[in-house]
Amino acid sequence: MATVSIEQDPSVLAARLARAAETAAAADLDALLISPGSDLRYLLGAAKESHERLTCLVLPTGGRPALVVPKLEEPGFADVPLAELGIDVVTWVDGQDPHAVVADLARRGSAPTRVAVADVMPALHTIPLRSALPDAEQVLAGDVLRELRMRKDAAEVEALRRAGAAIDRVHARMAEFLKPGRTEAEVGADISAAILEEGHSEAAFVIVGSGPNGASPHHALSDRVIERGDVVVIDIGGPLPEGYNSDCTRTYAVGEPAQSDVRETYAVLQAAQRAAVEAVRPGATAESIDAAAREPIAAAGFGEFFVHRTGHGIGLDVHEEPYIVGGSQLVLEPGMAFSVEPGIYQPGRWGARIEDIVIVTEDGVLPVNDQPHELVVLPA
Amino acid sequence: MATVSIEQDPSVLAARLARAAETAAAADLDALLISPGSDLRYLLGAAKESHERLTCLVLPTGGRPALVVPKLEEPGFADVPLAELGIDVVTWVDGQDPHAVVADLARRGSAPTRVAVADVMPALHTIPLRSALPDAEQVLAGDVLRELRMRKDAAEVEALRRAGAAIDRVHARMAEFLKPGRTEAEVGADISAAILEEGHSEAAFVIVGSGPNGASPHHALSDRVIERGDVVVIDIGGPLPEGYNSDCTRTYAVGEPAQSDVRETYAVLQAAQRAAVEAVRPGATAESIDAAAREPIAAAGFGEFFVHRTGHGIGLDVHEEPYIVGGSQLVLEPGMAFSVEPGIYQPGRWGARIEDIVIVTEDGVLPVNDQPHELVVLPA
Repeated sequence: MATVSIEQDPSVLAARLARAAETAAAADLDALLISPGSDLRYLLGAAKESHERLTCLVLPTGGRPALVVPKLEEPGFADVPLAELGIDVVTWVDGQDPHAVVADLARRGSAPTRVAVADVMPALHTIPLRSALPDAEQVLAGDVLRELRMRKDAAEVEALRRAGAAIDRVHARMAEFLKPGRTEAEVGADISAAILEEGHSEAAFVIVGSGPNGASPHHALSDRVIERGDVVVIDIGGPLPEGYNSDCTRTYAVGEPAQSDVRETYAVLQAAQRAAVEAVRPGATAESIDAAAREPIAAAGFGEFFVHRTGHGIGLDVHEEPYIVGGSQLVLEPGMAFSVEPGIYQPGRWGARIEDIVIVTEDGVLPVNDQPHELVVLPA
Repeated sequence: MATVSIEQDPSVLAARLARAAETAAAADLDALLISPGSDLRYLLGAAKESHERLTCLVLPTGGRPALVVPKLEEPGFADVPLAELGIDVVTWVDGQDPHAVVADLARRGSAPTRVAVADVMPALHTIPLRSALPDAEQVLAGDVLRELRMRKDAAEVEALRRAGAAIDRVHARMAEFLKPGRTEAEVGADISAAILEEGHSEAAFVIVGSGPNGASPHHALSDRVIERGDVVVIDIGGPLPEGYNSDCTRTYAVGEPAQSDVRETYAVLQAAQRAAVEAVRPGATAESIDAAAREPIAAAGFGEFFVHRTGHGIGLDVHEEPYIVGGSQLVLEPGMAFSVEPGIYQPGRWGARIEDIVIVTEDGVLPVNDQPHELVVLPA
């Protein structure tokens, strides 16, 4: 609700806006059309919500930017230094056509032939904007803005470290929550409360995958009662009020694991996760990190049970560029932040995943999570 | 997290799917492409989240429907009776192109020339789907699905009544929270907790507009300290776990209002809100309800201070069709549910708004909120 941001320094925002316009021009775009979401937060330093009423930053590559905003919602931008950033404010009221307003602004320079819309812009606005600018090809702004957003500056790195420390504190309290006889949903409710208590503004996701549910990587919560001997995957996170997200997975055993293959298989996973983190450095490719996690798992015969990519970028979004996936030749650079989270899933039996957020430094890697990577055996 | 729904009866869902396909065919569409959001929840009876990985229900007007889903997320649909509904499941994994998969399915009948995408579909999927189906015009599915969703069935009406009762219980507790010396943010945090305590799954919005902040209709929360004599607009709501939303505004005075014009102006607003609610019946137009609220306010000389439409539909979304706005000749029918929420905003001084959710019945109107409409003077 209340807006908090690490970045309302107009000079930093002005540099981001200028760089976005330059990068867009280099991509042969005439304008970026940015509706509320993380891209807008990155460029204006403030979180705004998306509604059926259009709010849109029009950032032409050869002209003055403008913010189109419903008259009703203009006061919500009082904390954004729009005038200082040279951004005109154009309000509209119910009954007017905001898409025509955006189109007119996008045409202020020359007639646009190629415009980019925010990746999160709903079709409710994307499609009318296409009709309002029928001669302009519409492409994704994410292809431009990822070039800025995936290289975190020092303040963003610090924000990710604070988020990592906050979720680490929740994992450190897991023995309070995760006990035999409780349902996943009960454990999840306590974890959600702890995520807020430890400083997050939202418990954005809480996965408690116990026993066979741990073998479904995107399982969330259920009424399954946790039993003594269960292996439990806990994958949790969310944003701090300043906007940057945490995301950390640890795998727990509730008492000594009931299944005899858990310890040996887990050791393979732990070694794979460590190898992948250790492979992170400037100059390495995204696919090489994925391979560093995947190869030891495959060598141990579990390749078919590691069913997802190794990681995703993180920042103002929980999932953003760079994705750490086979086939990606993206070259890592200092400031890139992403998860390293291999898993081994034994369908119908149990699963395990270990996830740290790491940041590429000038000469290596900085993990932001510091809880133990071993299988944590809780009292039961 | 856990999915709860009022509607997993396959026969009801099957009827909705059939009606969606018929309505789409009548609109000359070849297929509906529905990504996660309220439309998908309405059609499949289960809430699913949208991710960068595409999930999409492909509902051809002349063929068998299919659900395209990331392999990872398939287990999340275990509670949806897909087989019984005759929906094929097509999974994809990282590295595959899900937009091509959707395009192939949309082409199963004849080559589509016109497809509709969910209003909430992000550009991240809308634009690649356009490239994958280059010969098909892309339009909004909302224009089709609103025809179904804006007429609530008996179970949906009951769900909206439960949501209304839940938010009424929060308003009934307002004296616990709203006291002089507290900030709007402090009051808002308590209200958020109460919204959850009273049965909501989320405190989706909490507006505490005290003193001059009440004159900004979309103000949320601030660090302003509430003073004795303040008029305070409290606009709150969110979904129950079954998905249907509450939304209710009342205006409070913290002790006797400090400004001498409050009581008289408020009486105009209260009469206008009552007149608009009483105008609701089958056959009335949306614009006539807007006019019923607007005319008494204008007659009293406050027309320029009622700066927004009179209401919005509500259901699985907080804002949906029908919008109660000047110029809308939409004819009200039984089962339509919407807010009636005129306001009078005195810039820089104070504001007031009164909002009930109402449902059109066979012969009149059923309000779902029952807290007093008078200016509530709290102890101070």
